[in-house]
Amino acid sequence: MDQRTPSPPLYEALVARLTALVDDDVLRPGMRAPSVRAFATQHHVSLTTALQAYRLLEDRGVLEARPKSGFYVTQRSHRQRALPAASQPPRRANPVAVSNPLFSVLSYAGDPSYAPLGCAIPSAGLLAAERLDRQLARCARVHGRQYNIYADPHGDAELRAQISARALRLGHAVPPDGVLITNGCTEALNIALSVTAKPGDTVAIESPTYFGLLQVLEARGLRALELPTDPARGIDVAALDKALGARRVAACLLASSFNNPLGTRTDDASKAAIIRVLARHGVPLIEDDIYGDISSGDERPRPFAAIAPKADIILCSSFSKTIAPGYRIGWLAANRRHDEILASKFALSLSGAALPQKAMADFLKSGGYDAHLRRIRKAFADNIDRMRRTVDRSFPRETRMTDPKGGFVLWLELPAGFDSDALYRRAIRERICFVPGGLFTATSGYRNCLRLSCSHDWDARIERSVERLGELAHELLA
Amino acid sequence: MDQRTPSPPLYEALVARLTALVDDDVLRPGMRAPSVRAFATQHHVSLTTALQAYRLLEDRGVLEARPKSGFYVTQRSHRQRALPAASQPPRRANPVAVSNPLFSVLSYAGDPSYAPLGCAIPSAGLLAAERLDRQLARCARVHGRQYNIYADPHGDAELRAQISARALRLGHAVPPDGVLITNGCTEALNIALSVTAKPGDTVAIESPTYFGLLQVLEARGLRALELPTDPARGIDVAALDKALGARRVAACLLASSFNNPLGTRTDDASKAAIIRVLARHGVPLIEDDIYGDISSGDERPRPFAAIAPKADIILCSSFSKTIAPGYRIGWLAANRRHDEILASKFALSLSGAALPQKAMADFLKSGGYDAHLRRIRKAFADNIDRMRRTVDRSFPRETRMTDPKGGFVLWLELPAGFDSDALYRRAIRERICFVPGGLFTATSGYRNCLRLSCSHDWDARIERSVERLGELAHELLA
Repeated sequence: MDQRTPSPPLYEALVARLTALVDDDVLRPGMRAPSVRAFATQHHVSLTTALQAYRLLEDRGVLEARPKSGFYVTQRSHRQRALPAASQPPRRANPVAVSNPLFSVLSYAGDPSYAPLGCAIPSAGLLAAERLDRQLARCARVHGRQYNIYADPHGDAELRAQISARALRLGHAVPPDGVLITNGCTEALNIALSVTAKPGDTVAIESPTYFGLLQVLEARGLRALELPTDPARGIDVAALDKALGARRVAACLLASSFNNPLGTRTDDASKAAIIRVLARHGVPLIEDDIYGDISSGDERPRPFAAIAPKADIILCSSFSKTIAPGYRIGWLAANRRHDEILASKFALSLSGAALPQKAMADFLKSGGYDAHLRRIRKAFADNIDRMRRTVDRSFPRETRMTDPKGGFVLWLELPAGFDSDALYRRAIRERICFVPGGLFTATSGYRNCLRLSCSHDWDARIERSVERLGELAHELLA
Repeated sequence: MDQRTPSPPLYEALVARLTALVDDDVLRPGMRAPSVRAFATQHHVSLTTALQAYRLLEDRGVLEARPKSGFYVTQRSHRQRALPAASQPPRRANPVAVSNPLFSVLSYAGDPSYAPLGCAIPSAGLLAAERLDRQLARCARVHGRQYNIYADPHGDAELRAQISARALRLGHAVPPDGVLITNGCTEALNIALSVTAKPGDTVAIESPTYFGLLQVLEARGLRALELPTDPARGIDVAALDKALGARRVAACLLASSFNNPLGTRTDDASKAAIIRVLARHGVPLIEDDIYGDISSGDERPRPFAAIAPKADIILCSSFSKTIAPGYRIGWLAANRRHDEILASKFALSLSGAALPQKAMADFLKSGGYDAHLRRIRKAFADNIDRMRRTVDRSFPRETRMTDPKGGFVLWLELPAGFDSDALYRRAIRERICFVPGGLFTATSGYRNCLRLSCSHDWDARIERSVERLGELAHELLA
């Protein structure tokens, strides 16, 4: 199925209903599924439609067809997979050095001749940014001369107003003047770190964490204190409290939701508890909300800043994961340190490109972004689902994996001693790219882990590549 | 005269010829100019054309009309003005703290209700970037989807090839792979500094120097060692040698040509001598070539990197002063440290916006940029000329000023004890913005200096504002 053409809702509803029965263990592995005819009658659909749904469930490995007998729930369900264990990184702060190994991965990850399980880059087809591009074309034609200026270092005023209005819908009251437009979320993180930490300082982060973030810490000469993190609940609040009591920490940098690579959704109560601990120790929070909009449900989790509007929080985000990685438009929202933040932006890049900001403002103003978000949430959730089922039937049975409720990456944990670098080297030879686990930490951990990106339109090549990774993992474990 | 409509060549030639006679002291202050009729006959032009030229020379203060007697060379010629003295900054390295006073200046400088003598921002009319905007519109329509990606962190390959080809014409052999596209020259400088200096290190710079550069040093926690600099010749090579012998300097950061604010053009022999001194002390050179293309003559000065292709030089530049400040496209060209440079770019902003880079590549490829450069060189040179004449007839006679052969800023030095901050406060009340001298140093110097921008289409308001600044300066000195 091509994700670019939306599926008929009826058809999807049937697949979802049957999948839910399996996931909820109403239909258990080995059980016979209702006959296609009975299912069609029960749901008032044609036989053809019911059969289509069953065939798709078979493709996904939820059901298997047994000749002359009907459809059965496959023996191994992805629900049986355990989550990876909560991390237990060493308690010391570490200098960071991830740049070198990263380059090889990034070069393969950007090469279309490799199966795209490496970088967390959404498919252009899923993003459907044609309307935004048309706004840019119009802006360039109509406003070119007017916008050929060093823009206000804060960024386009209308764009900041639009971002402020969207934040308010999540209960996050940040005035347009509290928003600063940046060159992507990476520049926002640089600015946030520059106003809270100086070289040599320690920053507390989740473990495992996004390698790009580690590289920012490395470039800024900061030390990483990695926090024990549970794939389901997020960082361990008691461990955070203890860690902050034991040493001086300049800032704590956490993903708002659906962190990379674990995809964790931390609930509001835990978020509130984390903020209380940080406040008690006087440590500012930098939150990376870049995946927050990609919730698999319709309800979008609230960022920390919405839960505690008065807390010392700098929120960083961007449009790169939802509509326009190529536009490099991110932002930062803070309720204090405005002068330092502006000075930092000025010193880093003076101001952002004017026309892309104007185009983004016009695009948001014209509406339709929310409908787009609903569409991609479904698409990414479906990709994750397919990826999990494919991993489930292909990888060694000891493989644990995350069950992310948002974002578009999956984290796999193989038995201790498994060498994901070795898997990587073999996979690259077969033109399959993924990111080995060692890149997600400043310690020597996660060598038995790996990250798979589910951000591309699912197709036979991706499915075959995941299956092949599973075969290679079997060989390496043998 | 509106700079947007090119003047007839004949007419300009006449003005230039007579101005040259004055500048060369063939026609001296107080002397009678040839009669309009004689001049017309001599140059084979109509009386009307000759009279037009004389009127323009009168407008510019080169000639003055005396009723019933004809035109005379004005008593005070701008050529009589002495250059500012060579700077003699203290020999110690200083921490930098310029951010706070800068903000007020920058907010006024960007406000169109103030006379634009503040920021060095070219008029949109002079830049005439309509063709570039049309390329952007076309790229967005045609290539939007293809370019909605995280671009190669190096930047668009075709754009790098175009920049490499332009460098080669100056004898600077840098392969496309040695070019990195950045978010303006400011990001290029950040990257260059990040791979050569760490916080606490000392960087040697010209004095006075661009405040934005000081802010970059401040943000990176670097100390500034200001070098004695002569407005005509540039930095004092012997003093540089001595300074580098006396302490550890991580990098030397110099403008290639037409530095801001002095507008100095250092000759090739001096550039070669500077490079030899740096090599002897093992200090890398970061050169800021942002004004190099804006030479008032047709011959463009060569950057240091072209003069010494094997030396340890990182060249930083951008299109912001010549065609597109709003596009924020700069670059960096280095012959070593490629991996660290790439890691720094990745950590600062991951990659640049894709479509504006593609549009710039297409614009350069389609030709016409050189014709554009010839046009704006003339326009900026003419602006500087008018500004100098207006300063000459308006400011106190002790005022010294630079005689820049490129760029578009003028530096004025008033007698010791003059308070350019006081002038600034008065000027702002009258809605005239300029930049007081104290912002161009990390020391307490240059309080008696100021910078005037000649980057805007010359008009009556600008002329009147400069005259008014002169009146205020007279009052302050009285």
